[in-house]
Order: sequence, then C-alpha cells, then structure tokens
Amino acid sequence: MIVLLKPDATDADADALVARMRELGLKAQRTLDNGRRLIGAMGDAPPGASDTLKDFSCVEAVHATSTPYLLASRSFRNEDTLVEVADGRLVVGGETVVVMAGPCAVESFEQLRDIAGAVHAAGATVLRGGAYKHRTSPYAFQGLGEEALIYLSEVGRDLGMPVVTEVTDTRHVELVARYADILQVGARNMQNYNLLIEAGKAGKPVLLKRNMYATLESLLLCAEYILSAGNEQIILCERGIKTFEDSLRNTLDVAAVPSLKLKTHLPVIVDPSHASGHWGMVEPLSRAAVAAGADGLLIEVHNRPERARCDGHQSILPERFAKLVDDCRPIAAAVGRRM
Amino acid sequence: MIVLLKPDATDADADALVARMRELGLKAQRTLDNGRRLIGAMGDAPPGASDTLKDFSCVEAVHATSTPYLLASRSFRNEDTLVEVADGRLVVGGETVVVMAGPCAVESFEQLRDIAGAVHAAGATVLRGGAYKHRTSPYAFQGLGEEALIYLSEVGRDLGMPVVTEVTDTRHVELVARYADILQVGARNMQNYNLLIEAGKAGKPVLLKRNMYATLESLLLCAEYILSAGNEQIILCERGIKTFEDSLRNTLDVAAVPSLKLKTHLPVIVDPSHASGHWGMVEPLSRAAVAAGADGLLIEVHNRPERARCDGHQSILPERFAKLVDDCRPIAAAVGRRM
Amino acid sequence: MIVLLKPDATDADADALVARMRELGLKAQRTLDNGRRLIGAMGDAPPGASDTLKDFSCVEAVHATSTPYLLASRSFRNEDTLVEVADGRLVVGGETVVVMAGPCAVESFEQLRDIAGAVHAAGATVLRGGAYKHRTSPYAFQGLGEEALIYLSEVGRDLGMPVVTEVTDTRHVELVARYADILQVGARNMQNYNLLIEAGKAGKPVLLKRNMYATLESLLLCAEYILSAGNEQIILCERGIKTFEDSLRNTLDVAAVPSLKLKTHLPVIVDPSHASGHWGMVEPLSRAAVAAGADGLLIEVHNRPERARCDGHQSILPERFAKLVDDCRPIAAAVGRRM
Amino acid sequence: MIVLLKPDATDADADALVARMRELGLKAQRTLDNGRRLIGAMGDAPPGASDTLKDFSCVEAVHATSTPYLLASRSFRNEDTLVEVADGRLVVGGETVVVMAGPCAVESFEQLRDIAGAVHAAGATVLRGGAYKHRTSPYAFQGLGEEALIYLSEVGRDLGMPVVTEVTDTRHVELVARYADILQVGARNMQNYNLLIEAGKAGKPVLLKRNMYATLESLLLCAEYILSAGNEQIILCERGIKTFEDSLRNTLDVAAVPSLKLKTHLPVIVDPSHASGHWGMVEPLSRAAVAAGADGLLIEVHNRPERARCDGHQSILPERFAKLVDDCRPIAAAVGRRM
Repeated sequence: MIVLLKPDATDADADALVARMRELGLKAQRTLDNGRRLIGAMGDAPPGASDTLKDFSCVEAVHATSTPYLLASRSFRNEDTLVEVADGRLVVGGETVVVMAGPCAVESFEQLRDIAGAVHAAGATVLRGGAYKHRTSPYAFQGLGEEALIYLSEVGRDLGMPVVTEVTDTRHVELVARYADILQVGARNMQNYNLLIEAGKAGKPVLLKRNMYATLESLLLCAEYILSAGNEQIILCERGIKTFEDSLRNTLDVAAVPSLKLKTHLPVIVDPSHASGHWGMVEPLSRAAVAAGADGLLIEVHNRPERARCDGHQSILPERFAKLVDDCRPIAAAVGRRM
Repeated sequence: MIVLLKPDATDADADALVARMRELGLKAQRTLDNGRRLIGAMGDAPPGASDTLKDFSCVEAVHATSTPYLLASRSFRNEDTLVEVADGRLVVGGETVVVMAGPCAVESFEQLRDIAGAVHAAGATVLRGGAYKHRTSPYAFQGLGEEALIYLSEVGRDLGMPVVTEVTDTRHVELVARYADILQVGARNMQNYNLLIEAGKAGKPVLLKRNMYATLESLLLCAEYILSAGNEQIILCERGIKTFEDSLRNTLDVAAVPSLKLKTHLPVIVDPSHASGHWGMVEPLSRAAVAAGADGLLIEVHNRPERARCDGHQSILPERFAKLVDDCRPIAAAVGRRM
Repeated sequence: MIVLLKPDATDADADALVARMRELGLKAQRTLDNGRRLIGAMGDAPPGASDTLKDFSCVEAVHATSTPYLLASRSFRNEDTLVEVADGRLVVGGETVVVMAGPCAVESFEQLRDIAGAVHAAGATVLRGGAYKHRTSPYAFQGLGEEALIYLSEVGRDLGMPVVTEVTDTRHVELVARYADILQVGARNMQNYNLLIEAGKAGKPVLLKRNMYATLESLLLCAEYILSAGNEQIILCERGIKTFEDSLRNTLDVAAVPSLKLKTHLPVIVDPSHASGHWGMVEPLSRAAVAAGADGLLIEVHNRPERARCDGHQSILPERFAKLVDDCRPIAAAVGRRM
Repeated sequence: MIVLLKPDATDADADALVARMRELGLKAQRTLDNGRRLIGAMGDAPPGASDTLKDFSCVEAVHATSTPYLLASRSFRNEDTLVEVADGRLVVGGETVVVMAGPCAVESFEQLRDIAGAVHAAGATVLRGGAYKHRTSPYAFQGLGEEALIYLSEVGRDLGMPVVTEVTDTRHVELVARYADILQVGARNMQNYNLLIEAGKAGKPVLLKRNMYATLESLLLCAEYILSAGNEQIILCERGIKTFEDSLRNTLDVAAVPSLKLKTHLPVIVDPSHASGHWGMVEPLSRAAVAAGADGLLIEVHNRPERARCDGHQSILPERFAKLVDDCRPIAAAVGRRM
C-alpha cells in the first residue's frame, strides 16, 4: 500500500502512522515526491489494514499496489531520484550524462594514475577500478584488495574524481565504504541478498549491476532490498544479458534503459564494455545507450589492453575513449542532455 | 576460396575460370569490389584446386577462407553493397538512413491510403504493409492476399513510394514480385530455404528479417542462400530476439547493427516495432538504432491502433511517427548520415 | 467454444449445427471423445453465439474455452489419439513405445538397406531417412530427393517397416506422400504454416517436430494448423531446444513429454539424437524419455558414422542401437508400457 | 598440469614436489586415483615448469591439461568420488540412489517432525529443510534461522537421518556447519565465490546447486573453488535451468547428468521440485533423472502444500512421495542401481 499524506501533515502525524503500520506487521518507508509526503507499507497486510490507515486524519488517500518492488516503483515516487555522490559534488540522474571510466582491475599505482589521468582529461568524472575481482576461475588474478582501495582513493582525490569499486563479500563492506564514493554490487552478486542489505546500510550510493540473466523485475527486486535497508541512493546498471547470440559475450539490452525508466525513479546507466566484451563495439553501443536515454556510461579503459590482467579484450585505449566521449556529445544534445 | 583477378583480366578470362571451377565441383560467383574483379568458389574443393586456379595467368591471388557465408562476407566484397530499389529511385545502404513505414496488415484501400499519406508526409520513403500474414493461430486474420497487393501498388505509385511486402510461400513469389518493389522474407521464414531461393530468383531486392532465435551467423547463411541464387540486392533486418527478459515481447539486439556491418557488406536496417512489441518503446529504440549505425528503420504505423487487425499494440500514430523522424534527424547527423 | 451433443443426436443434427456455426463466421470441427460427439467452434464468436447454439435441441452443453489450440487440447478431446500408420499396421500413442530409426540422410540404396536391416533386427518398427535435407549452408549436401524416396519405399516394403521422411516445400507434399507412410515436418519448418496446411491435407499422419526455439504452446498452435486442415493423425516430437548450455548442441526438454500429455491428446515422441547432437548421450536420453512417458523414440543410426554425409556425430552404430533398445525395455515395463 | 607419481613414491617425495610447485607459483593438490598418487598443479606455469617437475625421480609422467577445472575433472581423478555423509553412515555416489526430502522451509518443529517422519517411512535417507531462505522479495518469509537449525538437528537425530540445509552468507558458515551434515550452496549463490571457499573449509560435504543460468562448465568451476579450498566432498545438483519455455518455471536439463558424469568424478543428483516448479511434474522427472543415471534425488515434500510458506506449488504430499519412490525403484534396478 502507498499512503499519501495531506499537505499539512506533520512529522508527528507520519510517526504515528508508521508506528501503526508496524503494529499491523508491515514495513514502512517514507519519501517525498514532488513535495508530497508518502509512506510505503510493505508486506502482507491483514484484512482491514487499508481502512485502519485511511481513518487517520492526516491521510489523504491509500493506494493498493500489486508491484512487488514498491519502493523502487514510480507509483511510490514519480519524481526522478537524483543520486548525490561525494557529498553532492556529482549528481547521477540529472541533466548531465555521467561518464565513469577506468581499468577493469587496479594493477599498480602507476597503471591507475596514468589511466585515470587520461580518462579525466577526456571527460570522465567518476573513476572506476576493481580491487576485489570476482573471477570464474579460482586460479585467476583476484585483485589487489585493500592496496587497490588505497590507490583508488589517492588517485581519485588528486584528480577530484569520485571513485566506484566493487564489493564482493559482506565482511568487506565497511572497509570498501571507507575508501569508495560509490559501492558497486557486481552482476554475479546481484542476488546476494545479504550483501545488498549490508551495502545498503553503508551510507554510500550503491551501483547495482544487472545480472546477465536477470529480468528487469528481478533487478528491481534487488534494488528493493537496498531501498528497504533505508538507502535510496541507487544507480542501476545495464551491462548486457546472456542470450543465444554468441558472436559477442553478451547482448546489450538497450531497451532496458527506457523500460526501466518507465518503471522506476532510479537512474540507469549502461556498461558497454561488459555488454559486448569487445572493444570494437564499445563506441557504437555507447552512442546507442545515450540515444536511448541512459543517465551515464561505465567504460573500461586500459593503456595496454594486451597486457591487462583482466578484460583486456573489452578495454579501449585512452585515445579511443576521448573520441567516444566527443562522439556522444551531439547525441546527448539531441536527447536534451549534456555530457 | 576467393580468387582475385589481375587488373587487366578480361570477361573471357573470368568465363574460363568459372568453367574450370564448375569442373572442380565448385559453385562460382563473380563480383566487383572497389573496381577489382573477384570470383568466389564455394563447396568442398578437391585437393590441389587452389593450385589449379592459381595457374591461370589472369589470376593474381587465391585466398582460402573459412567463413561459411563467403558471398555475404566482407572478405569477398569489402565495399558496401548499395541496394537499388525501384530502378534506382531509392538506395538502401548509402548516406541516407531510409525510413520504411506503414500498417502491419493492409486492411482496406482507405486505411492504407490514409496511413501511407501520413507517413509519406512525415518523411517515410518506402511503404510497408502486409498482404499475406503469417499468424501463429490458424483462426487469426491471414491478410487480404492479392487484393492487398493491388492496393499497395496503387497507393505506392500515387505517392511515389516503393513498396515492401512479405512473401510466405514459394508458390506466391511470382505474384508478389509483380506488385512489390522489395520482397520481404519474414522472421519465421528466415530458414525456409526453398523460399529464399525462389525469392532470390525473382529479380527484386529482398528484405531478410532475422528470426527471433537466429544468431548473426545463421542470418548470414540465409543471406548466402539468396546470394548463391544470384541476387546480391539484400537488406538485412534486425527485429528483436527472444531472450529470458519478458517485460517486452522481444529484445532489440542493437549490437547486431555494428556487428553485422563488420562481417558483411549488406545494408542493415532495424524494426523497432517488432523488436519491442510496444508502441512506447518505438521512439527510443529508433534513436538507438540510428546512433548504432543502422541503414534504415522499418516501423509500423496505424491511424487507429486500437482497431488494428494485427499488432495494434506496437503500432504508433502518424503524429508520433512524425515526431520520431524529427528526433532521429540530429542523431543521424551526429553519425554522419542524412535522414 | 466446445459444443457437446446429446447422446441421441444424429448426423443431421450435427450437420445443422455446423452449418449454423459457419453462418456465425466460425470454423467447425467434429470429434468423438469417449463415445460422445463434440464440435469445436473456432474463431471470433459474435455476441450471443453461445446462446444461439445452446438453443439447438441436440445440444447438451456449450463450453467457453480460452485455449488458443482448441482442437489439440484435452478439453476438446480427452481420450488419447491413436495415430494409425500404414493402414493401421502400426499404432503410435498406444501401449507400445514405438521405435523409429535409420540414417539422417539416405545416401545410397546399399547404405539404407544395410542400416534398415540392422535397426529392424534390433526392434525398430518404423524406418526413418532424409530425402530432402534442410541444411544451414547452401553448399552442403541437400539430399537425393525422389531417388531417396524410392529407396525408402522399397526397403521399407521389403522389411515390413512403415517409412517416415521429411517434406520441406509445399510443392513436394504430393510427391512425398506418394512414397512415405508418415510425413515429417522438420523443426525449422514448424512455423511454415502453408506447409502445415498442405501436409495436413495429404491424407497421411504427420510427425511434427518442435522447433528448437518453440514453446509448447506454439508447437500446439502449429498442430492446430494441421488439425484445422482436417487431419488429426499427428505425432508431436520433442527434439531438444536451444538454451545457454553449450556443451551439447541442444538441451532435451524431457519435461515436455509429461507436460504436453497434460495439455493434448496427441502422442509425443522424443528424438534423442538431435536433442543432444552427440552419440554418447543418445542412450541415457532414450532411457530418460521412456521413463518420462514418451510414446516413441526417433533415433539416427549409421553403419559408418565417420563417413555420414550429415549428422555423423550424433548417429550411433547398429550394435549400440540394439543395446539401447534392450536397455529401454525394462524401463518401458516400469512405466506400464511395452517396447 | 597433472603429475603422476611412480608406484613406489613416498610421502616425502610428494612433499618435495608440492614444495617445488609452490616455488614455481603454482597451487598443488594431491589425490589418489585407483591406487595411484597424482598431484594437480594449477595456475600459470612458467616456461620449463613441466620439465622441472619431470626431472624428479619419483615422477612417472607430467600431463598438460587445458581444462579450467582441473581438480574436478576426470583427467585428474578418474575414479568416482564417494561422498561420505555423517561419518560415513551414508554414501552419495555409490550403488544406492540417495533420496533427500523434506519441506522447502522449516516452519515449526511439528511441521518438520511430521514431514520428516513421513519421508523417512517412504524411503528418504537424508532430511532437507531451509533455515535461511533466499527470497526474491525482501518482504517474503526469510526462514527461522538458528531455530530451524536446531529443529533439523533434533528431528534428524531422532530418525537417524543426516541433514542438508542451505547456507547463504559467509558469516553463517560456522553456525550452519555445527548443525548440518551437508552444507547446501543454493543456485543463486553458486557464483558467490567467497561463500564457496568458506563452505569448502567447514569440514562438511557441500551440496552445490547449479545456477539456473549456469553452464556445466561454470558449475564445475565453482566446484573447483571448493576443491581448491581442500574439500573434495562435493555433490553437484541439477535443479532446472531457465529457458524460453515458460509453461514450467524451469527446464530440467536431464542430459546434465550423463554429461557431468563424463566430465567429473563428483556425484550428481537432481532436484525435480525446483526443476519444474510444479508438483505434477515431480514424479515423471524423478523417473527420468534416475533413468539418466542420477546419484540421488532432492525433493520438496509438504503435508499441507496449500499453506506452505514457500514453494507450496512444487511440493508433493507425503503419500505421493511414497508412490514416487516405489515407482523409481524398478527404474533404478534397470540401470544397475538400488534405491
């Protein structure tokens, strides 16, 4: 249920409503939507619950809803969520299409510094880089761990770029949140619900990547886990899905962008590097993503792709990245955005 | 094998080579690529065949190739194929992004005339409309048949728009080719090889739609059937593939556009109507397709979608179509095209 | 709608009902189910049609139904359909699990005779063999055509084995039906609706293979095309579906067997050769199919798989085939069948 | 690389080899296969490493291998692994087809005791039941946690049934291992690599369920994570994969059973409840699984499916479960097993 409060309702009114909802066995979450107070009530409502809530004098209306992801839905919050990164120095979901770029994995301080400098010069405003890598083989490079976090934090600070990096284990959340500005939950962990909850509680925006086999509904249900942990600063990321088509590693579901934006108020970005697994596709897919309305791009850049310790095949060189950003600008303009 | 002839080779030289190839049990097909003569030799070559051909004095080089779709490949013909429609009045694959539009099915002369007039005014240059419909239920409307062909031909002539319509049976090819400027082979018939061969022989360009479960390689093998029937005027069409994502009817594989253009010299267009099955997605997906480099769009437009005898849910109104074309123009410009 | 007639209804009553249904714009089809007459009325019924039909004194009840494949459904006919092959010399769908076997393609009279003799000795009762092959490459072996039909017919007659072979073109149906006892519509042609209709009219049982990307519902809709052409002698065949799992060519959907048998009265057989694409899987998958309740098996056998002109990798040797049949017998017994 | 030791090699020889492998930057793991000592050396071997190892006098042969899951492969260990549960009171992977059954979630002591008693009487030898549930909605029942573990342990002990239950978080592994005899890693956590490693270290057999979107290769790579943590007591479980077929919740990949058994020495069981999501399919799929060679079944049973707090639709009643086991016995016998 979604409870719309009257314009003159007070904080105390809302507190009383929330208390009543909890007595009814429901979870409650508040929001402001275009200046109006709403409270979402989630869970199996007992018979008569709706009438009970309607009886509060501060309540204007109670709407039933069948969506399984109430807090993530446009029904609960019609206004676009603006995700504020690094104390608001950067906003995702606003007029500007945000470009996040960097290496797949942090391999050394020098490697990170060089790539970060190049992508910053080309127009990237968020620095990405993996510290804890999630590899299909137990014998592959698993990341530098905290060492990488330190490098990311230093390089990001020097360049004035907020940092996004992946967290893969509930036990690392606190550590990663100490260094990173955005916590990434990777595709393979999308349904690691305990990790979602911990990441949600860490007080930082969360970048939630769609699993390569997840429907949009299940992606939104995972966002709901984070939202229900009290964190509404979530960026969704389409990064390609697995299909029968095998000439590329994944299939970019570009329709996910407009489709998600109809369903949810959360911003949606696109990762064309993982979506294709092939450097030659990163440019046309970036253009398509911006044309379809994406709020940002997440791109793997490497200065020596042939020596990269992971994902070299899908990483582009800094100079191609610069051209990519230039080519996307007029497309951003054509859809009423900046870049 | 691909045989490259010397610059001074004559027609008689080529004839002799082709004759020899046939003696070797190979199929032969000629092309001109950037002014150079090439002959493709397809089939299981006997040992020594390559040397036999190299011995011809007119031969500059013989290239082995492992691609199963030799004639469709860039190895055989690197230059983009320009498909000339209606005696060259319109070209697909050139600088201009071609817009094909019209109703799913021709329902009456008036319906067709009204919609055609509207899409023509909005910038469409090819008229689409179904005469023989391929329906999953035997009890659904199967199309007006020849009556629809007559209407298409008349309305197209009046507006100066070439006509594309689907052929579903080897026995209808001759009839459809009498009225239509482009023969469409629909997604469900993509692997109806006998139909491909007959359509290939009909002397008209063929619009070949990718089956919703076809890999790019199998699409190109189907194009190869048409090419091997002697027809190189083929337009490929991405129209969405089936994936696990079920919030839309299909998933637009936008990467198919740049990916196909790396593999083949044939033009590639996109059908955002079938790709989504939802009118609300047609506009963003059209923009994404143009941004990704598509050579054209194929769009279902209906003046009364709620009464359409098929596919009403994915048809857009003429006024939205006009806006769509306007919105795509700056994107076409951003990728160096016109529209 | 399904119209159940009273026990004492006459042929004349049924004729009158059918005539009325056609006036109402509906297609009508009769059946006998456990001794009761029923008439299916398909198409968009005008308002009041149900009441109009109920008013006939011979009508006991009119049931609305939402299934899109009325004639194929258990609602229309609850009793299992027995498909009678070769004037009833063999029945598919009864107590006996029928084994159909032979080479992928007929390559020569001797090849066919040798393999047929071996599979007959091992317990196969239907001979399979391709005359018109449906190949993904235009340069691959396309079958011996009518020559193969003649061999199949001769060898089948000599061994007392009915023959099943594929028809791939509406223009060949009459010819193939002259030689074959069962017309096979292959997986790639499952949705070639004109072919379904022609095959349906040819007066022979039809073996309809599920497309590797077809849902059970769409398979049943294709059966409906044949049924609506007046032919209810249809055998459905599960032959593996395409999935992300790529270690085998296809994934056997063994649940399709019990699932189809809940939905339809038509018999269901399994082709473990195409379902796996690997000879080593044919035996365990055959056992699984029989355990799940399949009415038959369709198996590729070749005496020299390494030299087969198609599908050698999935063909088993005659001696393994004999073991396979022996191993399946106790499983057939365990599920109350014979083999 | 796989290093085969000579028959007379000593422990000290093996120690020296392992030490050398580590100096070369490789991980080393020992096994006994049919009485022969082998050591697997995993990771990127430096040039000359193979020769270095061959020079040890205790080494008979060094085999290169390209499999990414060396320890899980038949190349490393050809002999079937027998998983010994509860100090060897029960073996998975031997002659007996093991039946594991119980409710989806433990809801109360009484519910568990009643269901456990019934399945025990019907022939189940392992008790399953969820304590920590992994639900797609944050508002759904998440399990009773440790309370459920206590009930499972008590009921299992009373009936002499070892207990299998799921662990969903690295932080719970120690707790769950205290109560359970087998640790289950669920399908959604199959690629939660940190969880695999922790579960691998807990000293109990691990039941690893295939993710609904995992290829067999990626399942085996996940097993490799557990094996490389030093635990070779792993049971693989096929539980249905996601495909386009939507009439059931998942598609049982029955070929996974014989296919896995060719690739790996680990036992493979089947969960027909999740594989179909429908109680009516559990019986035929169980028969098919046993016929295909499965080492066990994992089945959800509930005494009041309509009131189950999760998965009621796929749970069968105790009486149907008893019939299922009876029906599977002759099939087990037909494939040379007991049940």
